[in-house]
Amino acid sequence: MFTNRVTELFGIDYPIIQAGMIWASGWKLASAVSNAGGLGIIGAGSMYPDVLRSHIQKCKAATSRPFGVNIPLLYPDLEQHIRIIIEEQVPVVVTSAGNPKTWTRTFKDAGITVVHVVSSSKFALKSQDAGCDAIVAEGFEAGGHNGREETTTLVLIPAVKNAVQIPVIAAGGIATGRQMFAVMALGAEGVQVGTRFVACEEASVHPHFKSAVLNAAEGDTQLSLKKLTPVRLLKKRVFSARCRKRKGEVLTRANWQAYWAGHVRNGACTKGTWKRGNWRLARQVRW
Amino acid sequence: MFTNRVTELFGIDYPIIQAGMIWASGWKLASAVSNAGGLGIIGAGSMYPDVLRSHIQKCKAATSRPFGVNIPLLYPDLEQHIRIIIEEQVPVVVTSAGNPKTWTRTFKDAGITVVHVVSSSKFALKSQDAGCDAIVAEGFEAGGHNGREETTTLVLIPAVKNAVQIPVIAAGGIATGRQMFAVMALGAEGVQVGTRFVACEEASVHPHFKSAVLNAAEGDTQLSLKKLTPVRLLKKRVFSARCRKRKGEVLTRANWQAYWAGHVRNGACTKGTWKRGNWRLARQVRW
Repeated sequence: MFTNRVTELFGIDYPIIQAGMIWASGWKLASAVSNAGGLGIIGAGSMYPDVLRSHIQKCKAATSRPFGVNIPLLYPDLEQHIRIIIEEQVPVVVTSAGNPKTWTRTFKDAGITVVHVVSSSKFALKSQDAGCDAIVAEGFEAGGHNGREETTTLVLIPAVKNAVQIPVIAAGGIATGRQMFAVMALGAEGVQVGTRFVACEEASVHPHFKSAVLNAAEGDTQLSLKKLTPVRLLKKRVFSARCRKRKGEVLTRANWQAYWAGHVRNGACTKGTWKRGNWRLARQVRW
Repeated sequence: MFTNRVTELFGIDYPIIQAGMIWASGWKLASAVSNAGGLGIIGAGSMYPDVLRSHIQKCKAATSRPFGVNIPLLYPDLEQHIRIIIEEQVPVVVTSAGNPKTWTRTFKDAGITVVHVVSSSKFALKSQDAGCDAIVAEGFEAGGHNGREETTTLVLIPAVKNAVQIPVIAAGGIATGRQMFAVMALGAEGVQVGTRFVACEEASVHPHFKSAVLNAAEGDTQLSLKKLTPVRLLKKRVFSARCRKRKGEVLTRANWQAYWAGHVRNGACTKGTWKRGNWRLARQVRW
């Protein structure tokens, strides 16, 4: 059996973490991944607090293996989410989109393993200083929200590996064994994979979304809303028009929260309508 | 001794190709790389025809090993360059920025090995169909001119490898042995390295430029002029202002040729002035 610091940290068989993805990764996907020996993650960013609690409870019932919850630290109901995660004794938390200093201690004091998602060496170091157990270093290729630096996985992983001592989990553009091998040769000790898991039976998105993943080709995703909050989306006519509408918006707390609140209301991924969905896919869409 | 299809194709010891880079790779750098067992490339894109001939002749005098010339196919004096390359019996030509069908047969008939630079599987296949001996697949990370698809090296190499049978040489974000190993695990049989060679003693750029390469950090380069002709440049205040001025320009043959002609006149890289230079660096700037 392969073991390294990542398998030991989480108590898993393979150093493969399934990314928390809004609308796509509920308890079904997370428990399936954990049962298969990886680390399944519930994506809390699209869930109201009571929905999150229910997903955690169902996940615990469906697997006896470790699993985690991903929470964007700018989420409007953040404190309620944190309380639920601690009350439910979730083994792992993956935090993103915020300062790792603010909440890491709270989670650690509750006995929870903390991983922060970063897109630069600078924030990797900040996460290590904040007491995080590991980091996910996410390159430009990654689906969904993304760093402003546009540093790609091939360049980011060695840089981050040089900067910190805690384990580095690579993310962005990884969907195959070869790609996993390549990033581990660069110094990563594990991988976080998102888009590949969207196509799984257990992902909670509409079959139209799964087909879009399977049929997307090179150049079919694009980093959008660069000023407001960079996010990699599947290019499509209707959403492109909506992006153009928001294009001029710059990042303010109010703008961002209004944008984010849209995710909670927006069930398009699950309803499979092109019109309302902003479909987030990683660069790697074929494997 | 390590051998594979790339070392055998070029008759070199290591599957490392030094990228042809305007203003940086003249006969000195090319012959030094070839003498060290790689494939040195003279960058013809910044040279008037008589200058190119003189560099080729000096390179032949400085090395008995194979070397090559890189020519962008949209270069204004293209036919003169091609005549000189054939007359001087240059062993390898790397073509870029144009249709591989137009000139490959001419070079092949003259006994020259032809490599075309691409940024997508589609153009990789087109190059193979045109009779090219190998392709350089260049990711989003690459310095200088770049594809419109923004596909990164980690994603591009496996895709291109799936699409063609001829050898794939990976480029973009490769500056270390680990990165070379990673892209070869993805299916590449060789690497083309640019920015790392700019810092060499034998590169013909000003020491200020070499220092800029050595001191650049994550996020210090940016893909600019996306509408006119995407090009990865070192971010700096003066050049950013010039980029903003051209930002609205879209690609027409006239616009592009005017832009390109500027390179031939523009000696800023060799003079080391920030003001006039558009300093092209790959994403990977520390190693």
